[in-house]
Amino acid sequence: MKPADLSKVAITDGYWKKRADINRTVTLITEYNQLKDTGRLDTFKQLWKEGMPNEPHFFWDSDVAKWIEACAYSLVSFPDKKTEEMVDAVIDDIERAQWEDGYLNSYYTVKDKTARWTNLLIMHELYCAGHLMEAAVAYFQATGKDRLLNIMCRYADHINSVFGPEKGKLRGYPGHEEIELALVKLYNATGKEEYLRLSEYFVTERGRQPSYFDAELERTPGIKRYNRDKGTTMPYAYVQAHAPVTDQETIEGHSVRALYFLSGVADVAAITGRNDLLEACEKLYANMTQKRMYITGGVGDTPDIERFSYDYNLPNETAYAETCAAIASVFFCSRMLNITGNGKYGDTMELALHNGIMSGISLDGTEFFYSNPLAVEAKAVLEETLEFHSHMGYKRRKWFGCACCPPNIARLLSSLGSYFYSTDGRDIRVNLYGSSEFLHEGIKLSQTTDYPWDETVKILFSCETPSESMISLRIPGWCEKHEITINGGACAAEYSNGFAQIKRIWHDGDEITLFFHMPVVKMQAHPNVRHDTGKLALMRGPVVYCLEEEDNGKHLAALFIQPADNFDVVYDNEFLGGCAYLSGRAFRLSESGYEERLYKPFSAEYEEAGIKAIPYAMWSNRNPGDMLVWINAMTTPE
Amino acid sequence: MKPADLSKVAITDGYWKKRADINRTVTLITEYNQLKDTGRLDTFKQLWKEGMPNEPHFFWDSDVAKWIEACAYSLVSFPDKKTEEMVDAVIDDIERAQWEDGYLNSYYTVKDKTARWTNLLIMHELYCAGHLMEAAVAYFQATGKDRLLNIMCRYADHINSVFGPEKGKLRGYPGHEEIELALVKLYNATGKEEYLRLSEYFVTERGRQPSYFDAELERTPGIKRYNRDKGTTMPYAYVQAHAPVTDQETIEGHSVRALYFLSGVADVAAITGRNDLLEACEKLYANMTQKRMYITGGVGDTPDIERFSYDYNLPNETAYAETCAAIASVFFCSRMLNITGNGKYGDTMELALHNGIMSGISLDGTEFFYSNPLAVEAKAVLEETLEFHSHMGYKRRKWFGCACCPPNIARLLSSLGSYFYSTDGRDIRVNLYGSSEFLHEGIKLSQTTDYPWDETVKILFSCETPSESMISLRIPGWCEKHEITINGGACAAEYSNGFAQIKRIWHDGDEITLFFHMPVVKMQAHPNVRHDTGKLALMRGPVVYCLEEEDNGKHLAALFIQPADNFDVVYDNEFLGGCAYLSGRAFRLSESGYEERLYKPFSAEYEEAGIKAIPYAMWSNRNPGDMLVWINAMTTPE
Repeated sequence: MKPADLSKVAITDGYWKKRADINRTVTLITEYNQLKDTGRLDTFKQLWKEGMPNEPHFFWDSDVAKWIEACAYSLVSFPDKKTEEMVDAVIDDIERAQWEDGYLNSYYTVKDKTARWTNLLIMHELYCAGHLMEAAVAYFQATGKDRLLNIMCRYADHINSVFGPEKGKLRGYPGHEEIELALVKLYNATGKEEYLRLSEYFVTERGRQPSYFDAELERTPGIKRYNRDKGTTMPYAYVQAHAPVTDQETIEGHSVRALYFLSGVADVAAITGRNDLLEACEKLYANMTQKRMYITGGVGDTPDIERFSYDYNLPNETAYAETCAAIASVFFCSRMLNITGNGKYGDTMELALHNGIMSGISLDGTEFFYSNPLAVEAKAVLEETLEFHSHMGYKRRKWFGCACCPPNIARLLSSLGSYFYSTDGRDIRVNLYGSSEFLHEGIKLSQTTDYPWDETVKILFSCETPSESMISLRIPGWCEKHEITINGGACAAEYSNGFAQIKRIWHDGDEITLFFHMPVVKMQAHPNVRHDTGKLALMRGPVVYCLEEEDNGKHLAALFIQPADNFDVVYDNEFLGGCAYLSGRAFRLSESGYEERLYKPFSAEYEEAGIKAIPYAMWSNRNPGDMLVWINAMTTPE
Repeated sequence: MKPADLSKVAITDGYWKKRADINRTVTLITEYNQLKDTGRLDTFKQLWKEGMPNEPHFFWDSDVAKWIEACAYSLVSFPDKKTEEMVDAVIDDIERAQWEDGYLNSYYTVKDKTARWTNLLIMHELYCAGHLMEAAVAYFQATGKDRLLNIMCRYADHINSVFGPEKGKLRGYPGHEEIELALVKLYNATGKEEYLRLSEYFVTERGRQPSYFDAELERTPGIKRYNRDKGTTMPYAYVQAHAPVTDQETIEGHSVRALYFLSGVADVAAITGRNDLLEACEKLYANMTQKRMYITGGVGDTPDIERFSYDYNLPNETAYAETCAAIASVFFCSRMLNITGNGKYGDTMELALHNGIMSGISLDGTEFFYSNPLAVEAKAVLEETLEFHSHMGYKRRKWFGCACCPPNIARLLSSLGSYFYSTDGRDIRVNLYGSSEFLHEGIKLSQTTDYPWDETVKILFSCETPSESMISLRIPGWCEKHEITINGGACAAEYSNGFAQIKRIWHDGDEITLFFHMPVVKMQAHPNVRHDTGKLALMRGPVVYCLEEEDNGKHLAALFIQPADNFDVVYDNEFLGGCAYLSGRAFRLSESGYEERLYKPFSAEYEEAGIKAIPYAMWSNRNPGDMLVWINAMTTPE
């Protein structure tokens, strides 16, 4: 199956429309100003000299690239001359920054022209190249303008001349993956086989022994090998280079790198038909979702080095769960969904979208979380963390020194439509629910729904002439009961891999009505997750809920929920941009009987309290305060 | 009341005898070898030159001093020529390292003679001086040899000439407190009033505004103000210098500093009768024990900077709870116990001794914990922490770069007897229980007990002639029911401030029998401690229990206890050096029903499991593995 062509999808109303509109009208310009103010745009102008403020960082090109890509996707649906002029002006500078031989990296250009390609492990040349390639393809597809595409083809040709298995080339691969999936995009846009071959080389060379990273250190002794504040050589598992991907049993290392890499692996597997690569993707997906993923779809549990640590280690207050990692999970899962047709990948994608990603941006589109913890005591963050680790926090920030997340969420939101639908010939698959229109081979599907708040999704079929095709509807894994009707009557659907497949001759005006029963479900984690035992999380549909201090007072961990208690679902169009919140009963541990003691003999005494839970994605949009996803449960044996 | 003269107390049998014997016969020599091998002794020889290994650190003098002090206490009860020769040889070097004007600090002597007294905030000159004074007094009292005492009086005189409120002196005070209590010891040993006055000056000058630390930075710009990896100026609350102690509402900052300081404040309050200082001690003690202390008596919850953070913030896995801080708490509490006569201070002292301190040393006396967490997943520590933070760990270590804890525990164990009893004229107070003998004004008290494992304490009274006096017996705060008999018959005791007071004419052979009912008690923390809600800790008497992987398998957080369940108490003389362990029933969360999911709808399904809990102080003496104090509780509302 192929993802929907973005130009054929319009998000028309509801939850995603609100968020996408703000992204287009507020976030894109906010981010442009940040890129400008922090010197990222000037670096391409090559004006920076040693000693000047805004010293360039080796990942800056990627921030600019992702912003261009976000603008490009936006221009597909919303042509806008001003945005296009802004992008073109940046491309002017990029063009001037390209070297004669095609090399293009603003950091090395202004910092040290002699050192390029000497430190693939730490420096991000190939990573930045990949993001610029993605931007180039997107901007070409959006506008038909091929200047950046040509720039990046020249750069890709240069890279292809430097790296590869052939004699005389360096057998290197990036320390931060990204170029693998970007080269496949470039191949798809240009048809140049060498880009696909180079991507396959990067995918399969990675992790072979002896390590290229050892070799480059030997060739250029003294290059930076310092891993943050750890004082150690970066272990190669951190960059997924400890073994070839086909030999990896667990998803390891920096979570964004791991998932960008697997996206590229999936791409190569899809095009080349290499089953060993696809099996590696399936195996590592299984490890991630069964042992290493937060209930929010967030991944990467260890703040210091932004990485997966080990099975079932999912601390809540110190969760890293980087916004970019959840976005990367969507990239990977959407590919796997299209390759395998298995709806479980859609479930993971949907979970990340509704929770661990959208928590990364404020409702007004101007502030961002880098990490997305599942429990916050504002006081703890304020005193212990915020001052020193700007990535952590209880309050979103306008920008970051390492600003990967803001433009990443922008490009996701401006391209969201392409994830909604997939096609295979005349057949259409509905992957995500949200009010939208999709045009495909003379057919128009019009989804109308207040999903994820409402349980009903209507899909209207429009066509000039009756058309036989299969419409497949993803039945989410969280959904234990659903109904499907067509034109109000019974519908014979076949179920396969998490999809309800309806094959028939469709007529203009046919309407599918989906009803997903969405009770409030109390979830529990696997007992090996030591941080969550004795606790439950509230979910409804794909939405994870949390408690905020604003609604429930301080000391959220003193609240207990009876698993059998019911919660009311209240949709409020004025609340947090419009959402369904949960209202119900909890029990608050009594503070009485302690006198002057901090510890006393056990007695489970509670006071009944009303609580209100809000969608996790919308936390920290009011007064700063505490937040909690995993709530203490009353745990009587059954 | 006065603490017992160490020379009048003998620990004769039981728990403390075993630990004290190993301290004397194994730990003291182990630590001497470490001091030697790491260069700490050589630094006093002034042999170190820039570029040589074992670069001196500015706290090294204190490590040596505490070892001398530990040896001195040991010599009181166990004269030993070899130990005395070792100490004398070290004193030779110390003497030669003293400057003509009395100054004495090996670090500045070998590193930079011009910089002394320029950086009180960061450098530890006054701290090291204090420890050497304590050592000098102890060694003088143990052996009658006054060489080190005279050295330290000369140094104290020098310090007195440099610091103070008088014109021409620096109005400074130490960044790391310790000298305050040491000067009082020096005053008590020599009778020189100026030492007491200097101590009072340090106690009361601290925290006055404008800050001396600002002034010294202005005087010598560029001096080190770097606080570990934080990149910030050390906030003055970290060193308890944000306000005068009488204005402090909460116990703040580095926990060892805070408690050494308060020990000195208590000393000055006791001698001068200054009630404002005593009230400050009481207020900060209340804040510590009611809001900032682990159930083990450990304090200091934040690893990075070893400090108190804020009320009710007591994370278990990342607990710092430095061994030295619990020891400092004993120093402070024993002083407050003697000043106020209130048994609650004895409770805190006993709690720390039996738990958070003794966890700091292996049963064989050769390995040490610096931090004493209340939950450990060995895998997490191994991967995330051990490599980088040598202070944290799941396994004790032979030594530390910052080796304050090992000699601190040695000096505590070799002077433990002095904490057992206090006197006021002919009256005797029994503060701690353990087999021991105490001679006081013709009376001999002989305690016989297997406390804390056994509930019975017998105290035999021996005297040549009948003697009227009051014997006060601390009734521990944890003890809800006890009986006291004399010679098997009823006993009329008056109860006051946590003590049972028995005033009568005592005859030779009189025997008091105390029976402390010691059920296994499930404890719960105040609901504001978010890390412990829904959990219970097992205690029996003053002993906190924990679960170890060795006995209970992995995933200890998947175990739940019914608060109403009883536990068997099993004394095993062969187990972990002889102790009572607990045996009972728990419920282990079932792993079934997850299929390939990490999260599923809540269902409290358990499998019954036997569990064994061991004294927390004895964990990590077998195979390395996980450990847990706070166990999930079944939390049905009552």
